[in-house]
Amino acid sequence: MKILILGADGYLGWSLTTHLMHSSHELLLVDNYSKRKLMRKLNRKTIKNISRIETKLPYIKEYNKKVSFKKTDCKDINSLKNIFKKFKPNAVIHFAEYPSAPLSMLNDEYGWKTFENNLKTTFNLASCVKNFCPDCHIIKLGTMGEYGTPNIDIEEGWLRVNHKKRKETFLYPRQGSSVYHTSKIMDTDMLWLYTRLYKLRTTDLMQGPVYGLNFNSTDNNRLITSFAYDDIFGTVLNRFIVQAVSGVPLTVYGSGNQIRGYININDTLECISLALKNKPKRGELKIHNQFTEQFSVNKLANLVCDSMKDFNIKVKIKRIHNPRIENENHYYNAKNSNLRKMGLVPTKLNKKIIQQITNYIIDYKKNIDMSQIHPRFKW
Amino acid sequence: MKILILGADGYLGWSLTTHLMHSSHELLLVDNYSKRKLMRKLNRKTIKNISRIETKLPYIKEYNKKVSFKKTDCKDINSLKNIFKKFKPNAVIHFAEYPSAPLSMLNDEYGWKTFENNLKTTFNLASCVKNFCPDCHIIKLGTMGEYGTPNIDIEEGWLRVNHKKRKETFLYPRQGSSVYHTSKIMDTDMLWLYTRLYKLRTTDLMQGPVYGLNFNSTDNNRLITSFAYDDIFGTVLNRFIVQAVSGVPLTVYGSGNQIRGYININDTLECISLALKNKPKRGELKIHNQFTEQFSVNKLANLVCDSMKDFNIKVKIKRIHNPRIENENHYYNAKNSNLRKMGLVPTKLNKKIIQQITNYIIDYKKNIDMSQIHPRFKW
Repeated sequence: MKILILGADGYLGWSLTTHLMHSSHELLLVDNYSKRKLMRKLNRKTIKNISRIETKLPYIKEYNKKVSFKKTDCKDINSLKNIFKKFKPNAVIHFAEYPSAPLSMLNDEYGWKTFENNLKTTFNLASCVKNFCPDCHIIKLGTMGEYGTPNIDIEEGWLRVNHKKRKETFLYPRQGSSVYHTSKIMDTDMLWLYTRLYKLRTTDLMQGPVYGLNFNSTDNNRLITSFAYDDIFGTVLNRFIVQAVSGVPLTVYGSGNQIRGYININDTLECISLALKNKPKRGELKIHNQFTEQFSVNKLANLVCDSMKDFNIKVKIKRIHNPRIENENHYYNAKNSNLRKMGLVPTKLNKKIIQQITNYIIDYKKNIDMSQIHPRFKW
Repeated sequence: MKILILGADGYLGWSLTTHLMHSSHELLLVDNYSKRKLMRKLNRKTIKNISRIETKLPYIKEYNKKVSFKKTDCKDINSLKNIFKKFKPNAVIHFAEYPSAPLSMLNDEYGWKTFENNLKTTFNLASCVKNFCPDCHIIKLGTMGEYGTPNIDIEEGWLRVNHKKRKETFLYPRQGSSVYHTSKIMDTDMLWLYTRLYKLRTTDLMQGPVYGLNFNSTDNNRLITSFAYDDIFGTVLNRFIVQAVSGVPLTVYGSGNQIRGYININDTLECISLALKNKPKRGELKIHNQFTEQFSVNKLANLVCDSMKDFNIKVKIKRIHNPRIENENHYYNAKNSNLRKMGLVPTKLNKKIIQQITNYIIDYKKNIDMSQIHPRFKW
């Protein structure tokens, strides 16, 4: 299969590359390094300096010769058109979006940039698929945060409504609590429009916060993916582990009762592989909730504390003023059976997994920049 | 009250100006004439050449001295900031959006322009209100087309859902059938986000196709609003009347069983005045369905045929291949009681109203460009 990966330089894009290099698929990687630029501009660094794709490509080719890279901005429709015309992918995986809620709420400039980047890349993708390879499978990363925290169960993408003795199935009503989450709701509306009108094949993976590293697909550190632990780009469990290793208290936002669905990065890669094997029919939008376990933030923090005992690291938990506008006490019950029915065997978070990540972080402890650890922005 | 009208040069923006010139409100009109540019580029003309706002302002000032105009592109955040900082409006009415579904489906260029224009202007508006006058009332024009044609009743903006013995009220799930309609769904999501996060006051008027001219607020032709009858910018009833006067058959798309909710332009102006008098609470988004009657396209076409008999105009109806991708046979029952409860006395469409519009069109019959009458684009 010919697979196009948009945003291949990111935390997930690069992990997926190392996962798929073990297959016989032909891969075309695309990125414009905009996240690196953003991080530099905002003085944020990943725990380890990660080489550019050009430098790592020879190591990837030791596993799979049919992997290439094209530095391209997916906002540029003409460049993307050329890629689609030449490569003619069977599947495209779309990571070319700004990934951060705090970034989108930093100020109006980053707010609009988030809307513009996420909608333009998705628009260009939909337009290229419609015009050049309408049979191509679009796999797009959504987020569980699009659903918000409704007072009813969160179903997988669709909601069957009974109203005054009549029935209709709608896209599950989404209500995000940041510009980022709202941009992801919009790109879903956009892709669903194009999928209906032009009979495209689309999968939307509604992902919970991801944690961990792609240890399963890499046998050496050269191909490890980036690991952000800062207040803008880092996800919560990854941040807690770095805080623990640094000897600072874990920063729990508000009461810590916020419940979310989490997923191990290796499961994310497995989910995308499963999506690749389950192509939607023409005109179909498949939506899967991509998380494996629900935790409160407090439960996560406690598990990290517990896991650190074997390292003789004593960890404190500090409840700080919540920088986000969100409900802290809410009903939360999200469904996630689609991907398990397709074959996913969930990795359950436990002390061993946290300790494996901790060992990696300890190796790079000297790189930790303490100024990145505390949240500095609020909305 | 200080009222800012964004997009004051359009069909509705200008009508509203003539409606509000009879009040003591202070009005600041804003437009960048982009719709005029678009129409020129696409070789579309309104039935009568309409002077620019600068030229008409002296006539407006005969009624109300406190009306001024600023040529400004609302996509330019800095220009809009300056307007908000200086004028400090109590209310802003947002018409500064691309208004056409066919335009948005013309090709990818106009598709993206529609998304970009409608989202950027709305983003800039929300951002200016948040930063400079958070107490200001935002009145935004939505469209009934955002709801699509669901198999259950269309409520006014919100839907109470009972699901597995729990309840939640959501924004009514919207599913438009064009890029334009989808852009309007997105701007609603955007405004609802800002309204919730920053406790803004917002009214969304979900309007059905508008017909007619602002005869009620103008006693002379100098201040009449633009009247488009072409396949891109004209609304259905207005187009039918021009077709009838031109002696060509009325072009009904497909079966003609499509049902929509329609509204007379004078009622639109009354609805906006009612919205101005009913300011939402901080953090509240009021949503009203702004139409007065539901008709099938066939019923509209038959009423036009009937009305033309008194002019001795014989009219044929021609069912042509539907250029739009839409359901032609569908359930449709939309609620519209909010605005009536606020005091709207609906104008019912009848032969007399159609004949009044027809008389105006006959005066400008020589201007009719036959090449604009037939739909030339499909999606």
